Amino acid sequence: MVKFSYHQRVLPSPPAIDFASDEGKKLFREAFLAGTMVGFFKLICYFQTQSELTYCGLASLAMVLNALHIDPGKTWKDPWRWFHESMLGCPEQLEKVKAEGISFWEVANLALDYGAEVEAFQTSQIDVKFFRRSVKECSSSDNRHLVSSYDRATLKQAGSGHFSPIGGYHEGSDMVLILDVARFKYPPHWVPLTLLWKAMDTVDKTTRGTRGFMLISKPKRDTGLLYTLVWAMLC
Amino acid sequence: MVKFSYHQRVLPSPPAIDFASDEGKKLFREAFLAGTMVGFFKLICYFQTQSELTYCGLASLAMVLNALHIDPGKTWKDPWRWFHESMLGCPEQLEKVKAEGISFWEVANLALDYGAEVEAFQTSQIDVKFFRRSVKECSSSDNRHLVSSYDRATLKQAGSGHFSPIGGYHEGSDMVLILDVARFKYPPHWVPLTLLWKAMDTVDKTTRGTRGFMLISKPKRDTGLLYTLVWAMLC
Repeated sequence: MVKFSYHQRVLPSPPAIDFASDEGKKLFREAFLAGTMVGFFKLICYFQTQSELTYCGLASLAMVLNALHIDPGKTWKDPWRWFHESMLGCPEQLEKVKAEGISFWEVANLALDYGAEVEAFQTSQIDVKFFRRSVKECSSSDNRHLVSSYDRATLKQAGSGHFSPIGGYHEGSDMVLILDVARFKYPPHWVPLTLLWKAMDTVDKTTRGTRGFMLISKPKRDTGLLYTLVWAMLC
Repeated sequence: MVKFSYHQRVLPSPPAIDFASDEGKKLFREAFLAGTMVGFFKLICYFQTQSELTYCGLASLAMVLNALHIDPGKTWKDPWRWFHESMLGCPEQLEKVKAEGISFWEVANLALDYGAEVEAFQTSQIDVKFFRRSVKECSSSDNRHLVSSYDRATLKQAGSGHFSPIGGYHEGSDMVLILDVARFKYPPHWVPLTLLWKAMDTVDKTTRGTRGFMLISKPKRDTGLLYTLVWAMLC
């Protein structure tokens, strides 16, 4: 029996523009010089591939928590404390995510559980102007990152519900850079902000609500040291 | 018993400059505008964390093979063909690498096994001018990447033998960008090229030879499709 497999997929372009293409680099250059790629630098240091096909939400979260230098308070591989997707949630929750994926609010709650400050918005609560303002703010600083929950089909991509962090904004073309954590499928790419808005403004069958985005930042008081002391005393 | 663990280490600076610091971004900006960050764009799309503490060589290799879009010819997670460290080498070799790490020539041989073109140089065979020329060439194009094998102690860093890809070059200060795959330890950072040369010009106890670097590029004839057809017929 012939079994099909894929070595990446062709990025539907338009609407997307490959980050590492000549056009993608031109957008990067202009956005960088305009000051809307500030958040990119911290975020790209921790860009990762989702380790399971249903872990896009967990991978996006691990990436942002590491970029914010939040201390997980427990070790990944002794002696290193580091956020890996397999550490997010209890074993039962991880099994569920592996089988079914994860919902928007579950990702937001996990971010809270690990000490981040989170503001989560469904598209039904806000408008595209608010989204654009949030993208611009996150792209112009490095202390807050935006994770988008969207429907791939709207972007003409293979698949459906997906999560990924946003790595930058190009004002002239009103495009955002998606740091797609399914790197085995598509490279990072620019898409029109209004199209990403439409892709977020879709109903998730699980929550029966619209998708949206969340802003994740480091808490003013980092509880990592406290966790570490408790951890050290228990070992 | 109190058990120590680390949430990253403080990057010894000098000699290193954190990629995402103001000074690091200034170097990036100048190097980018000067055309010596071309290779960075493809490479950074696949920047990853080594999944085991001894997998720096395998992680550097997986990152470069993915950046070159070489087809592994076998699936990582069905239906996706993708280079993950755990796919590089047979189980016995992986067990050995997990226990002891990997030598310079073993990494070069693995790259060859997976269809890449490889040129490997120990510092004893060449001089710093040749290294600088190689760094400049790789930084100015995106079809060949450089992996360095060096001694961390020379850079005042914790640890000893290590591998990482080089992500760019800043000619004015003669500094290179190390995309350190031990991201749980240090962020990516710039270091003086001559210091990295010194760090490579050290003896590896296993091979009893000096360390060095390798240039990895995509073969003119990609064998991925052939592998895929064989794979498909066997399944």
